[in-house]
Amino acid sequence: MNKNRLEAFSDGVLAIIITIMVLEMHAPEEPTWHGLWQVLPVFLSYLLSFLYVGIYWNNHHHMLHLAGKVNGAVLWANLHLLFWLSLFPFSTRWMQDTGFVQVPVLAYGFNLLLAAVAFYLLQSALIRRQGRDGHLGRALGRDWKGKLSPLFYLLGLAATLVHPWLGLGVYAGVALMWLVPNRRIEDYVAHLHS
Amino acid sequence: MNKNRLEAFSDGVLAIIITIMVLEMHAPEEPTWHGLWQVLPVFLSYLLSFLYVGIYWNNHHHMLHLAGKVNGAVLWANLHLLFWLSLFPFSTRWMQDTGFVQVPVLAYGFNLLLAAVAFYLLQSALIRRQGRDGHLGRALGRDWKGKLSPLFYLLGLAATLVHPWLGLGVYAGVALMWLVPNRRIEDYVAHLHS
Amino acid sequence: MNKNRLEAFSDGVLAIIITIMVLEMHAPEEPTWHGLWQVLPVFLSYLLSFLYVGIYWNNHHHMLHLAGKVNGAVLWANLHLLFWLSLFPFSTRWMQDTGFVQVPVLAYGFNLLLAAVAFYLLQSALIRRQGRDGHLGRALGRDWKGKLSPLFYLLGLAATLVHPWLGLGVYAGVALMWLVPNRRIEDYVAHLHS
Amino acid sequence: MNKNRLEAFSDGVLAIIITIMVLEMHAPEEPTWHGLWQVLPVFLSYLLSFLYVGIYWNNHHHMLHLAGKVNGAVLWANLHLLFWLSLFPFSTRWMQDTGFVQVPVLAYGFNLLLAAVAFYLLQSALIRRQGRDGHLGRALGRDWKGKLSPLFYLLGLAATLVHPWLGLGVYAGVALMWLVPNRRIEDYVAHLHS
Repeated sequence: MNKNRLEAFSDGVLAIIITIMVLEMHAPEEPTWHGLWQVLPVFLSYLLSFLYVGIYWNNHHHMLHLAGKVNGAVLWANLHLLFWLSLFPFSTRWMQDTGFVQVPVLAYGFNLLLAAVAFYLLQSALIRRQGRDGHLGRALGRDWKGKLSPLFYLLGLAATLVHPWLGLGVYAGVALMWLVPNRRIEDYVAHLHS
Repeated sequence: MNKNRLEAFSDGVLAIIITIMVLEMHAPEEPTWHGLWQVLPVFLSYLLSFLYVGIYWNNHHHMLHLAGKVNGAVLWANLHLLFWLSLFPFSTRWMQDTGFVQVPVLAYGFNLLLAAVAFYLLQSALIRRQGRDGHLGRALGRDWKGKLSPLFYLLGLAATLVHPWLGLGVYAGVALMWLVPNRRIEDYVAHLHS
Repeated sequence: MNKNRLEAFSDGVLAIIITIMVLEMHAPEEPTWHGLWQVLPVFLSYLLSFLYVGIYWNNHHHMLHLAGKVNGAVLWANLHLLFWLSLFPFSTRWMQDTGFVQVPVLAYGFNLLLAAVAFYLLQSALIRRQGRDGHLGRALGRDWKGKLSPLFYLLGLAATLVHPWLGLGVYAGVALMWLVPNRRIEDYVAHLHS
Repeated sequence: MNKNRLEAFSDGVLAIIITIMVLEMHAPEEPTWHGLWQVLPVFLSYLLSFLYVGIYWNNHHHMLHLAGKVNGAVLWANLHLLFWLSLFPFSTRWMQDTGFVQVPVLAYGFNLLLAAVAFYLLQSALIRRQGRDGHLGRALGRDWKGKLSPLFYLLGLAATLVHPWLGLGVYAGVALMWLVPNRRIEDYVAHLHS
């Protein structure tokens, strides 16, 4: 089975998730710089969720690039990932509407954690399909980023118990770590073609 | 006529349907675990509708994979299916906003039933176009799942008359039955290539 | 310049237009059949707009199928068409929210008329690019449907002055006329391949 | 790395941005021509933002057409552009809801400016990847439009300090300047094929 339509559908869903979050951002009520300043936390949390969806799209792109054919297990693992990503607008909005207090920030962190787990499961399904010696398995190598991320999210959850903004800082840190594109895979591809 | 653009358009519509439903989920008003707990039924019904759209996408993907060229009848049968699927956000929201009482849960069941009928009509149009001995007709074989689903939805409607949650349980059961991917078609394709 | 990306972008916009209209349909407030019955006009106008977007997608699909390469004029004529189509959710909602009285129904008719004109302009730009003896020019032939539609919309506008539902009946009639797929083009393609 | 999926994802995001803005337009409350007349500024600002997204799509299309393979830097430069474009619905809505007073019109202008800068950065990343003697670098030539636009936006911001409608007039003028499609690139492509 061909992976093109899986990519197309995932692109569609990710494109919509990344875009509809802007519908949730309430415009400031007063038309002043002060009004805009007051929505700064909302704006920053939009930026954070935008970054996360962008990172997932980017990594999904790289991962599928090296994957071979897909099977039913991959289709469902992919849909499972899209499910947790589709909740980003919901959990982002809850944080925004309630002023970034503890429980919604924890819920946002759990959402990040579950999406990371779902990504890991999808990656495993792809590697299982292709064999550990396939392109994907070899390009990923030790995959320390993928393995560290869940730990960082747990750290972020713990930090949220101290103070919500501390937790959000950890989540933002993980995003920054991922902003560096998946060089393992890029290097591997460059190596393949050399 | 080529089926690629039909797939692309359907993917787009399904990707949007599956994603905008999250816009309809109201975030809990109080920022507590108790608030989150109170939206659990809303969350579960979102999950159910997400699963159904995912199942339709999956089966649509498998079905079109084996279909040949498409004609006008197929285009309209596909649009007819998309129409009933596009009402999922509407019927899901009505259930959620009214606390899962009888009439909205029945309406949701009718929506599921009509989407299943529309899928059957699309499948028939594709088989008619290709001939019963074509790949699709042979891969489907007896198609017991496709034939049983409408009966199960009717059962779900009857169960809703007893209690709405019983009906929702039946609808969830049908979704679980479909979660197993269309192995008939996968087996057939594997067989083709062997 | 290649037409694939033009098709992909148009498919995306049309898929979103056709789907977000469901967000505008307010669910009935009371969870009863009577409540559902009361939103029947809203439902029917959703169906009408869904049909129109479906018809435009279908005809767009057929038209581009025979078109050759595209140029800047075609890109802008296409965007112009998408603009008027993007207003369908707006004009549909205005009718729905105000109970289908005269002025909003007239505005809806003007929207249909302007979309038809925009489609005609896009078609002309494609034919001009390809030459009247190109595939598209010859497949369209006399194009009586394309020429009659604007007249019918004008008739619908006049009928709306008598009674809004009469006007809506005319608009629905034009939709039914178009539901028959563009057999001119299908026949022409069949002829090409025979 | 292939540019197809980058195009597909960008098309999806742009298609959604251009379409969801219509969800933000409030329909007139009274069902009269006078009611429609009162939303004319809202309509015009929708048209302006629609045009801008269309222009970006068009130029993106032309630019990617000449680009070669993409790398991680290009992916992130593209996402950065999409981020500022995704804020168009937000900044458009703020202007509309507050009656086009100074601060929101300035914010809208900053949004246009930042999107233009992001487009320039993406273009630079593509040229850097391909070399200044590559197709894109040579097709763009002096690129006076791309260099003048930020200056015009700054002019528009200054004009907004005099009167918001003056600033909006300047922004609309820049859009008109871009409506002429990217003839540099079209000419270059025509030249390539001649």
